[in-house]
This record gives sequence, C-alpha cells and structure tokens, in this order.
Amino acid sequence: MFRIVAPDARKVDLRIGKNYDTVKGDDGAWTVTTAPLVVGFHYYSLAVDGAVLADSNTRTFFGSGWDNSGIEIPEGPEGDYYRPQDVPHGQVSQRWYFSKVTGQWRRCYVYTPPDYESGKTSYPVLYLLHGWGENEQGWHAQGHVDFIMDNLIAAKKARSFIVVMDNLNAVKPGEDGTIFISRALQPPPKPGEQPMRRLASFTGATFTEMMLTDLIPMIEKTYRVLPGRENRAMAGLSMGGFQTFRTTLAHLDQFAWIGGFSGSTGGFAGDFDPKTSDGGAYADTAAFNRKVKMLFLGIGSAEGPRTKKFSEQLTAAGIHNVYFESPGTAHEWLTWRRCLKEFAPLLFR
Amino acid sequence: MFRIVAPDARKVDLRIGKNYDTVKGDDGAWTVTTAPLVVGFHYYSLAVDGAVLADSNTRTFFGSGWDNSGIEIPEGPEGDYYRPQDVPHGQVSQRWYFSKVTGQWRRCYVYTPPDYESGKTSYPVLYLLHGWGENEQGWHAQGHVDFIMDNLIAAKKARSFIVVMDNLNAVKPGEDGTIFISRALQPPPKPGEQPMRRLASFTGATFTEMMLTDLIPMIEKTYRVLPGRENRAMAGLSMGGFQTFRTTLAHLDQFAWIGGFSGSTGGFAGDFDPKTSDGGAYADTAAFNRKVKMLFLGIGSAEGPRTKKFSEQLTAAGIHNVYFESPGTAHEWLTWRRCLKEFAPLLFR
Repeated sequence: MFRIVAPDARKVDLRIGKNYDTVKGDDGAWTVTTAPLVVGFHYYSLAVDGAVLADSNTRTFFGSGWDNSGIEIPEGPEGDYYRPQDVPHGQVSQRWYFSKVTGQWRRCYVYTPPDYESGKTSYPVLYLLHGWGENEQGWHAQGHVDFIMDNLIAAKKARSFIVVMDNLNAVKPGEDGTIFISRALQPPPKPGEQPMRRLASFTGATFTEMMLTDLIPMIEKTYRVLPGRENRAMAGLSMGGFQTFRTTLAHLDQFAWIGGFSGSTGGFAGDFDPKTSDGGAYADTAAFNRKVKMLFLGIGSAEGPRTKKFSEQLTAAGIHNVYFESPGTAHEWLTWRRCLKEFAPLLFR
Repeated sequence: MFRIVAPDARKVDLRIGKNYDTVKGDDGAWTVTTAPLVVGFHYYSLAVDGAVLADSNTRTFFGSGWDNSGIEIPEGPEGDYYRPQDVPHGQVSQRWYFSKVTGQWRRCYVYTPPDYESGKTSYPVLYLLHGWGENEQGWHAQGHVDFIMDNLIAAKKARSFIVVMDNLNAVKPGEDGTIFISRALQPPPKPGEQPMRRLASFTGATFTEMMLTDLIPMIEKTYRVLPGRENRAMAGLSMGGFQTFRTTLAHLDQFAWIGGFSGSTGGFAGDFDPKTSDGGAYADTAAFNRKVKMLFLGIGSAEGPRTKKFSEQLTAAGIHNVYFESPGTAHEWLTWRRCLKEFAPLLFR
C-alpha cells in the first residue's frame, strides 16, 4: 500500500511497472494498494498532477537516468546470499581517476574481498558493468555485490577476487553520443511511460578505449592485482552486458572470462552466424574455446527466449558457453544478483 | 533559474531557504528565477500542489531526513581545495559492521589517504560526524572530504591520516530516541517550512557506547591504525559537533583532538561555567590543556556569535582552543568544508 501526501493535488498516479490511480483520503493523503508485486527490486515513481517525481519518504536509486524510488520485495531465506551475514566483510571503495581519453574525472567503485586489507597477496579482477540509465553505484546500491561476494567467499564457493564497477558513459571531447533526451524537452509522458533523462553521452568504442587506456592501468597500479588476461574478467547487465561483448570480443588478448546478464550481442546482431557475427570473433571455434575460459549467459525466465536461443546457437556452432536462467524473475536486479551468484563461483578456476 | 515540468499542476513552489512561487509557461513547465544565492551548498525541494518532493532532474542528497535536492553555488579558484586536482588520490570505502550495542548492521565510510593502498605504515584516525537529518554519506557526497584531504596532503599542509565517517543514529533494542516524525503524519508544511522525515532513532549515550564498543575496535582491527588517544581525533558538524563534545569530554582517556564545526556544547548548556559545564570536564584547567592537544571551534560568520562567545569563555577560563570563522557563510556545507580545511592541518602534530 502506497500513501502520498499531496493535499492540493487533483491527480496522483503511482508508476510501478504499470500505472495505478490513487484515491484521496480526508487527511489529504492519496493511497493505493497495488496488485502483488513479484519478488525482486522494482523502480517506481509518482506523477503528481503530471509531474513525474520520486517518493520523498523512501531512499532513491539511480535508474532510468535519475534518482527515482525503488522498493524491494525480498526473497525469503533463499535471499540470504545478498544480505549481510555474520561473515568476514570486504569493502566497496569510491575511487576517482582522470581519464586521458575523455579528458574528464571519472568515478568507479572497487570491491576488495575481506582478506584484502590485512593481506599481502594479489587478486584477479572482474570488471562489472551496470545497465541502461544506471551508474557505477548500481551494483552495490541495488545489486548488493559486496554481500553476495562476502557470502560466496565465506562459504568457499568463490575465489577471493576484486570487482571493479565503472560507469558506461564515456565520450571524447566534442564527441556526441547522446542516447538520452531531457524529460524537460519531452511532452508529458503517457500513463505508465517511464520518464527519460539526459545522461552523460555514451559510445561503446570510447568506453572500450577508456577502459583499456585509463581504467585498467589505474586499477593495476593502485591495487594488488594479478597480471594477465587469465586474471581479468568482464561482465555486465543489460546494456552493460552488450558493452561487455563489444569490449571483450574485440580484445580477447585482454580478457579470458566473459559474462552477459540479461544482455549480450545475441539477438541484437540479427541472425547469428558463427563465421561473421561479432566481427568474426567466433570464426575459429577451437581458438575461441582455447582463449575464452568461460562465456556466461544469464537471463530471467520472464525475459523471453532470446538469450537461450543465442546460447543454443553458440553451442550448435561448437562454442562452449554457460547458460543460466533465473526462475520467475524479469529484467531487474534480482535476476542480476542471481546471475552474479552463479557466475562468480566459476571465475578464475 | 529553475524549470519544473508539471503540466497539470495548479501551483508549484520552489523551496530553497525561502519559498518561491513559480509561473507556468505555454509548454507546461513552471519557471522561477531566484534572488542570487550565496556561495555554498544549498538543499532545495519542490512543492507540487502541496506535495513536497525532490527535483527529478538533478541528483539527490540525504539531508533533513530524506533524499532531497541540492545545488552548489561554486566558489571560484579559492574553492579548488574541495575539487579534484591532478594529485594522488585516496579513496572512500563503504564498510559494513555489526554493532553488538544496537544489535544491528551499521555502515560507515572510511577515507584512506593516497599512500595507504600501496603502503605499509599505520595512520592516526579522525572520527568525523555529519549533522541533523544527514547520514554517513554526507561528508563525501556533500562535503568532498576526499578531495579536501587529497589536496591538503599533496600540498604537505596536513599529515596523512584516516577519516572514519559513521552515522549518528544509534539506539539499543527497545530504546526510544525518536527525534524525527514522519512527514506523512504531519499536516502539510507551511510555505517555506522544511518537511520532516523519520530517521532511525538516536540517543547520544548509545552512540558513544556503540562507538567505543563496536566502531573503534572494528576500525583498529581492519585498518593499519596507530594506537592510543593521541592518534585519535573526533569532530562533527552541527548535531555531530554536539555529539563530539558529549563523547570526547566524557572519555578524554580515548581522544586527544576535538573539533566542533557549527556545533558544540557551548551555548546549549546555558551560561558557561568552567567548573561545572560539560560535567566538569574543564574544571582542572591544567589537566584539560595537558590532555587535549587541540579543541577546535569553527563557525560560519552568518551563524551568529554563540560559538565565538563560547571560545572566548573557554579562553577566559584558561582553556586552550582554536577558533575559526568562515567568512560570509551560513549553516551549510561550505562552512564545514572550510572548517575541515583549517582543522586537518593542525591534527596529529
């Protein structure tokens, strides 16, 4: 049940997947009881007389290009893997660095495992990307990457490794890669329509160049990192998964482990052709299987068959890959937490 | 100039210190041009037909108990001390820990200096608190603690030390220390009135016990920390400064450096009496001066004379203290950034 105080409003809508009208009470508060929401993390917003805004009584989460509201429908005990437990805890660190490629200061977050601070050994690194309209904060604010890793490591299900979470947005000075338009320049959204916000511009090629030129060298200079492609993984969710395939498949000399969570090149590139798709990355099947220690494809069962089909096409072409389907979840953070839970234990083995 | 898209609204107010009416344009957007704002960081919110909400086109900042909007009126070159420069950068780390005193998981942020990650030496620690309605994120999100420290350390103006930023809110199970009430349970705020939000409860005594029992031992076990009271400082802004005095003056065996930024016991405790104020902490002047390496009192020049009077009363009583007045600033983050800039260089000398 949602309750919004807007005493002088004529109409208040709740937008959570679909659009709900609310009813005004004598106390000036508007209320609505939604249909039961499926388990997982759901963004939502309010439309107060046509103004699309966040709930002021809950925390905001950066998604769809703005600080909108989010509500978690928690899993039962099976969700303990993403909640804090009485185990050793690592930390998520905010790290600022200057990018020569974009000419701007950038921020990334770095998860270091529990034994990092007091230890002396070096670790492999997973570069982990957010999705459309989100930012470098998503994986710890919405994804609970730190609790998931802490719990997997404590249970000895995953190796201790570093996770680097950067921001997809990257353009060179003067380069125009705008993919978002300002809500203020749009007509009012239709009922249930998500508002759009302008983000910093994005081009996949510039992100890849920035990552190889600025991010990876900074990380390997700053932290105790094991060198070489076999100690370097990249994964991402949704648009971040698409970017992961673009970056890694064009630079297999740099990455040996690849993950796409509800996002990959599969299906986007039209009919899959093992000889030509993704720039012919799969053409030499034996070489690909030798170089790529793992190609992981994760998806929510409610997201449609495209990723499963892509996995089957890869398998049919002789490309080794791991397919994971999250039962009963859609294109949201519970799917991606579960993907990380399945993906992390297989890394760097 | 502010521009808010609320096509069907009857009234849209902008609340930034004072209340501004906005005017609707043909495109359904409401606009207003405010009087010039003084330099610094200002929280603001929108009232759309009586609903007090954050701007959905800018980032939110946790203050007054909710994720409201903030706008920075930047300083000129003199503000470079709180902006990222081409110097070595430390990091701000999110650290979760379980509190035996409150029976809950807590989150703090830990700034480690640039040479920490690659180094082996141990460091003194400053425990630094936020203000009323803010949280453990305030000092890096609004205060830029990391850039201020990076720049001071690079200029050799401050020693390298660790900064721990925790959350003031702390109650034991069953303890009721509520100091905020839910906006949804209030009548609509009057024009210009700040909305109130409920935060986790707070009692100063429980925070002190939690800090000494849970926080400090966790920090000293996790990080390379120099032991002993002379390597331990505590400071805070506003309500956090008041808490700093409560905690440190009752435990001078634990802290040797004390800072209050727009917040201290001075003036709150009525007439200052060196023999009885703050539990008689100042009674033995010589012992106090010997134990307390620095008592720092900072304030914005627009905040009134109370802190200056307190400093003068301390001086008259023979209590050594440092008074800093930030020119032309009020009870906001620019005052507190400047306080840290003045306070940090004097620490651990």
